[in-house]
Amino acid sequence: MKVIIINGPNLNLIGIREPHIYGNTTFEDYYKDLCKTFPGINLHYYQSNVEGELINKIQEAGFQMDGIILNAGGYTHTSVAIGDAIASVPARVVEVHISNIFAREAIRQQSMLSPKCCGVISGFGLHSYRLALDYFKI
Amino acid sequence: MKVIIINGPNLNLIGIREPHIYGNTTFEDYYKDLCKTFPGINLHYYQSNVEGELINKIQEAGFQMDGIILNAGGYTHTSVAIGDAIASVPARVVEVHISNIFAREAIRQQSMLSPKCCGVISGFGLHSYRLALDYFKI
Amino acid sequence: MKVIIINGPNLNLIGIREPHIYGNTTFEDYYKDLCKTFPGINLHYYQSNVEGELINKIQEAGFQMDGIILNAGGYTHTSVAIGDAIASVPARVVEVHISNIFAREAIRQQSMLSPKCCGVISGFGLHSYRLALDYFKI
Amino acid sequence: MKVIIINGPNLNLIGIREPHIYGNTTFEDYYKDLCKTFPGINLHYYQSNVEGELINKIQEAGFQMDGIILNAGGYTHTSVAIGDAIASVPARVVEVHISNIFAREAIRQQSMLSPKCCGVISGFGLHSYRLALDYFKI
Amino acid sequence: MKVIIINGPNLNLIGIREPHIYGNTTFEDYYKDLCKTFPGINLHYYQSNVEGELINKIQEAGFQMDGIILNAGGYTHTSVAIGDAIASVPARVVEVHISNIFAREAIRQQSMLSPKCCGVISGFGLHSYRLALDYFKI
Amino acid sequence: MKVIIINGPNLNLIGIREPHIYGNTTFEDYYKDLCKTFPGINLHYYQSNVEGELINKIQEAGFQMDGIILNAGGYTHTSVAIGDAIASVPARVVEVHISNIFAREAIRQQSMLSPKCCGVISGFGLHSYRLALDYFKI
Amino acid sequence: MKVIIINGPNLNLIGIREPHIYGNTTFEDYYKDLCKTFPGINLHYYQSNVEGELINKIQEAGFQMDGIILNAGGYTHTSVAIGDAIASVPARVVEVHISNIFAREAIRQQSMLSPKCCGVISGFGLHSYRLALDYFKI
Amino acid sequence: MKVIIINGPNLNLIGIREPHIYGNTTFEDYYKDLCKTFPGINLHYYQSNVEGELINKIQEAGFQMDGIILNAGGYTHTSVAIGDAIASVPARVVEVHISNIFAREAIRQQSMLSPKCCGVISGFGLHSYRLALDYFKI
Amino acid sequence: MKVIIINGPNLNLIGIREPHIYGNTTFEDYYKDLCKTFPGINLHYYQSNVEGELINKIQEAGFQMDGIILNAGGYTHTSVAIGDAIASVPARVVEVHISNIFAREAIRQQSMLSPKCCGVISGFGLHSYRLALDYFKI
Amino acid sequence: MKVIIINGPNLNLIGIREPHIYGNTTFEDYYKDLCKTFPGINLHYYQSNVEGELINKIQEAGFQMDGIILNAGGYTHTSVAIGDAIASVPARVVEVHISNIFAREAIRQQSMLSPKCCGVISGFGLHSYRLALDYFKI
Amino acid sequence: MKVIIINGPNLNLIGIREPHIYGNTTFEDYYKDLCKTFPGINLHYYQSNVEGELINKIQEAGFQMDGIILNAGGYTHTSVAIGDAIASVPARVVEVHISNIFAREAIRQQSMLSPKCCGVISGFGLHSYRLALDYFKI
Amino acid sequence: MKVIIINGPNLNLIGIREPHIYGNTTFEDYYKDLCKTFPGINLHYYQSNVEGELINKIQEAGFQMDGIILNAGGYTHTSVAIGDAIASVPARVVEVHISNIFAREAIRQQSMLSPKCCGVISGFGLHSYRLALDYFKI
Repeated sequence: MKVIIINGPNLNLIGIREPHIYGNTTFEDYYKDLCKTFPGINLHYYQSNVEGELINKIQEAGFQMDGIILNAGGYTHTSVAIGDAIASVPARVVEVHISNIFAREAIRQQSMLSPKCCGVISGFGLHSYRLALDYFKI
Repeated sequence: MKVIIINGPNLNLIGIREPHIYGNTTFEDYYKDLCKTFPGINLHYYQSNVEGELINKIQEAGFQMDGIILNAGGYTHTSVAIGDAIASVPARVVEVHISNIFAREAIRQQSMLSPKCCGVISGFGLHSYRLALDYFKI
Repeated sequence: MKVIIINGPNLNLIGIREPHIYGNTTFEDYYKDLCKTFPGINLHYYQSNVEGELINKIQEAGFQMDGIILNAGGYTHTSVAIGDAIASVPARVVEVHISNIFAREAIRQQSMLSPKCCGVISGFGLHSYRLALDYFKI
Repeated sequence: MKVIIINGPNLNLIGIREPHIYGNTTFEDYYKDLCKTFPGINLHYYQSNVEGELINKIQEAGFQMDGIILNAGGYTHTSVAIGDAIASVPARVVEVHISNIFAREAIRQQSMLSPKCCGVISGFGLHSYRLALDYFKI
Repeated sequence: MKVIIINGPNLNLIGIREPHIYGNTTFEDYYKDLCKTFPGINLHYYQSNVEGELINKIQEAGFQMDGIILNAGGYTHTSVAIGDAIASVPARVVEVHISNIFAREAIRQQSMLSPKCCGVISGFGLHSYRLALDYFKI
Repeated sequence: MKVIIINGPNLNLIGIREPHIYGNTTFEDYYKDLCKTFPGINLHYYQSNVEGELINKIQEAGFQMDGIILNAGGYTHTSVAIGDAIASVPARVVEVHISNIFAREAIRQQSMLSPKCCGVISGFGLHSYRLALDYFKI
Repeated sequence: MKVIIINGPNLNLIGIREPHIYGNTTFEDYYKDLCKTFPGINLHYYQSNVEGELINKIQEAGFQMDGIILNAGGYTHTSVAIGDAIASVPARVVEVHISNIFAREAIRQQSMLSPKCCGVISGFGLHSYRLALDYFKI
Repeated sequence: MKVIIINGPNLNLIGIREPHIYGNTTFEDYYKDLCKTFPGINLHYYQSNVEGELINKIQEAGFQMDGIILNAGGYTHTSVAIGDAIASVPARVVEVHISNIFAREAIRQQSMLSPKCCGVISGFGLHSYRLALDYFKI
Repeated sequence: MKVIIINGPNLNLIGIREPHIYGNTTFEDYYKDLCKTFPGINLHYYQSNVEGELINKIQEAGFQMDGIILNAGGYTHTSVAIGDAIASVPARVVEVHISNIFAREAIRQQSMLSPKCCGVISGFGLHSYRLALDYFKI
Repeated sequence: MKVIIINGPNLNLIGIREPHIYGNTTFEDYYKDLCKTFPGINLHYYQSNVEGELINKIQEAGFQMDGIILNAGGYTHTSVAIGDAIASVPARVVEVHISNIFAREAIRQQSMLSPKCCGVISGFGLHSYRLALDYFKI
Repeated sequence: MKVIIINGPNLNLIGIREPHIYGNTTFEDYYKDLCKTFPGINLHYYQSNVEGELINKIQEAGFQMDGIILNAGGYTHTSVAIGDAIASVPARVVEVHISNIFAREAIRQQSMLSPKCCGVISGFGLHSYRLALDYFKI
Repeated sequence: MKVIIINGPNLNLIGIREPHIYGNTTFEDYYKDLCKTFPGINLHYYQSNVEGELINKIQEAGFQMDGIILNAGGYTHTSVAIGDAIASVPARVVEVHISNIFAREAIRQQSMLSPKCCGVISGFGLHSYRLALDYFKI
């Protein structure tokens, strides 16, 4: 089984921003741990701040992978185009969020992507990614 | 670790309604399987169609259990009072939905409970419950 | 043919409240007359002020009866869960209202239940129930 | 007792449009049956696609008839002027719809006429007209 | 003069939840003090988390008592049915809130009950109940 | 100076409907008085319940008359097409209303025609027409 | 007959602002002409930029005058308090506007005062005041 | 191939209104040119200011013609009934507009007809009709 | 303890307007009674129709008094600036209303001031002021 | 005459996605046919999934080409910046859509670009591009 | 160059309210410093809590000064009348705010004045005034 | 002190587009002048039409510079992701606009970025950038 994690804008700053509070574990570090935790899954990772590059990657991976774990960051709430890309590919796409977006400001409580995804996992910190992998493993 | 699954209105009909389509596995059957899958968790189950009884149970379990897995069914979208109950108890509460509520009609795309829960898992069928237990097991 | 009338909150006060104006015919009295008017129909009656108990009764009767005549009172305008219960059962459900809800305040002009019912009869006083029975008799 | 059925735009196509599906019973045929079913009622029928002609007829019939059964079709949702006509005449006006308008798209879920009618019957197919006559017969 | 205090969902947790912050005076304790402060009033108390049971109690007390002091908790903002119950009974009903609901989130700034009550007292802590009794005493 | 009064739907019922209350002065009677009051104005009158016939008349009179006094009745609030007709002709058009539309229900507080008219006179009973003629006489 | 014209904010600038375009006839000049045109009316005039002073004047004049001609300028669209003052006094109040407010930006198309006035005259330039006096003279 | 152009309200004024600006080519003139440009198409033309007559024509032509080119003018934005007529007939209907309706005021940016048409062409002046014929010719 | 009652626009008309209905007790009369009822409180009174003068008084009294009882009349629903003044002073401010504002038209059901006040008392007639003083006395 | 077709996100998947349904004609194939159909037009083609690259291309081509045929895909509904780019260049821009966007979900029924384009062609499948070229050829 | 700073409601409390936090520099002190920093500008200062007095001052200064620096406090968000005053005078008006109003609650994120001002400076503390003077100095 | 100016989409066209109106001073020319005017500031400049590249630059510069002057053009009104980037970096960010966005169409009157910036300067033409530098220099 092949699964790719696709992270959107500003998620590259995890572990860099305010390390005295959040620690200095970067998403790359966390990703390495995930690979070890799920040895049976052929796992990949991609990050970009550019909406169109995320679409490019969803289009490419969506025909090659079994699953996509997508955290589109701020584009979650504004991008019709990413939603269209998800709907265009055969891979199952799981939407994840680190924070509970439904407990945040109004604009973040609505997702343009959810109706195109098979499911949503939101609010479990970095564990959200792990639960998404649990789903693909079932 | 003690965790209770609390199901709201109409979820008692799983496995009874349209068995030629959905099969005749009831939630009770599924629940027994879950107990076996998670032997390390002290698991409980409760269902009611009455909003106030769900509040009673959240109040009671919320001081005794470590976690609550809550699928409030149709009350998800209308109940301020259940949201208040969640906010009143020390247990962590995970909101789950069998279907992807964000891909359904407008009224179901908004949850009164999400802002009070630690996280949301929506759209993975009955697996949503299992992923919630995965979270408590981490 | 088996039909049940299910009345929701505050409808138990018909004939009790302001009898000098409305007379003191209770719904039970009216119900007895209905039974006589429709001798060919096996008629039942249930009333509760509790939303969840209405759901319980719809679930139970919805698999046993041919038809349900539902006046959900104030829950008409707020209950996603009763709407779900209606959608879950094979019986035909007719929504009735004594007053013309569309001529009342804004909140009462929208029904959460109508999209799940086979039809709506509103505004004919207690005759609304009789017209619903006329429908089942056709 | 004198009652007129007034049908609005596109209702003249019943029985003409897609006869292999809906059969080729026109409203005129159905109307003849209604006349036989209610021999004690002096029944009339009028149809027009023109909003103003419907107003003309409501004004005329509204002073001559005991009741009007009105299916204003698409004008139901947009016409303040037909609503004013209803409010201007002494006859009781019953609003009917063949389909359940509350289960259709948003624009059809609101009626400009309902607040001016004594009651509404919606969703029982052509039987909606018959139930309206049952009402006038009571 | 007979007055009943009716408390809705989650108000049974006063004095139990977070006692190190709020103290461990329960509403029952406070109620006993109120009885002493207003010896001339025949005071009663009822609490339930179930919307329909609150309606039952309003219907029952509303014909027996002179006044009702109602804190419907989360149902304040969503219940048409409780509003209908208030409008159905002869007793004067005063709506009270412990916190200032107008300074809280949007959903709590609107009350479905206020238009049916004779007055509203909001934001004075437990003193809100006392001011309501002052009103009945005038 | 040539001026035409154009009246829309249901305004033909003035003086006919409820004569014991409003008297039996029809608009035609009132119109004859107006002609006498303004002998220097070449006055005409037209009424129709049909939106398109009102447009026909506005188009025709709008190139022949100096002024149009328009009371479009219920079409005031819904007709983009009448607004377009007003904007298409060189005559000055004054919008009049017998009742104060701004003191009525919400739908009547907005006019689709006002932005296309040179002015609005609303609420002075039949005097509204007279004030409009005063304007043309200035 | 005693009538007062009350002008609100910025209306004191008529004839002062851009005299090369609008001429240098001030409202005071126009007012003198009005007095001559309506010799049978005991006419008064007041202007203030202060909302509360307008209320003071409406309260005072509203018990002494037969009529008030009110152009509340920008307060028209925002002042509940001026509306309350109008509703509190026995004098008939006519709302006037120099420009056609319904052809301007959205905020100006709604008046907080119209529902409390007996009528509205808008869009006839300074003639709007004259038409209001025509009304009082009828 | 048989195609009819159906024009709605005020479109009969093209070439008549402000000829010094727009020239004095009427739609009839333009229509004659179109007939010459598309000799292989059996072309017809109809115009009415009356909503119901447009429905009559759509119903009639919709069973006889291959295509309808519809410019419903101001009714575009308000008529549910014309939309229903379009949906009732087998002919393909193309919605055209002379001006770019999406660049005009808010009410004109929404069309009640577009969802029922096979396509929309807006903003190319009279060429919009020609492009619609190009479509039928493909 | 020093407390001031600050009344806003039109509240100076109590007892003057329609005395045959409301009696001719002015607020000044009522105020004198209040002083006698609460001899232990150093009570003051101020009224103005001018929004800015109410702000001046709140600023002045807010640093000198222990409590302010504020009925801002029509400004309640529109004044951000009075809300800012309340938030700027150390005195506790109680918002009162004579009528139950929540049972009135929509604009009056929202208060710009409530979020800045410590509590709200609405609907008890002039007793609302007395209950506010009861609060300060506790 | 020089014209460029600019396609936005996900339009590169035409002919690739679900070939058993849509056939395997890619847009490149269709483009070659278009070039042959319009030999007199100097035609170009560009596609990108990146919003900013579409802006780059509109800026570049907009000063070199006579016309732009733009299908901005999902960005149509969300991009103020593309609309600004269109408004910045001298070339005429025609907005095209393959499907009838007005018959799809709400978010797709509004275009941020239409007000800046000279016209819109929507719903004719790939023929929409051809009609746009017909326009440039006129 | 002559410039006046006009401050609206509650801005007179700067330096008086909570001096232990904000220091005890009043706006008058700050104003003296500004005068020294911009010796080449003839600077004036005015403050009032009364909306109409602000209008009076804008009208007066607007014909005498080159520039107005306006901080209308809470009136910023509610006053159509101040906006009208700004539009009536030849002086350039710069809107300033001490706090970043766009980061505050919804009502403060909209300004009725901005469309009438030449520019807006918001969020730089008292420096906002200085930047406005920098603008006039350029 | 190190400050970077970051310009978003279409701002690269300044001085190129319509030079006969705006002159042919490009932003690069203006930038050179700014460098001379503020010799004490280490000034940088970046422009991109790509939303994600703006995020990349904000992330990079936001940890290296003291201040960012951001004109995000059309992305100002739609980009949650740029707002997140601003919130993620320690540099102070000032939002600037050349035109007064609050005097333009509705969509431009709301900024997704303002709540994350320390301040906003809008409407002073290219001087807006200079005022922002004045702020950093204070």
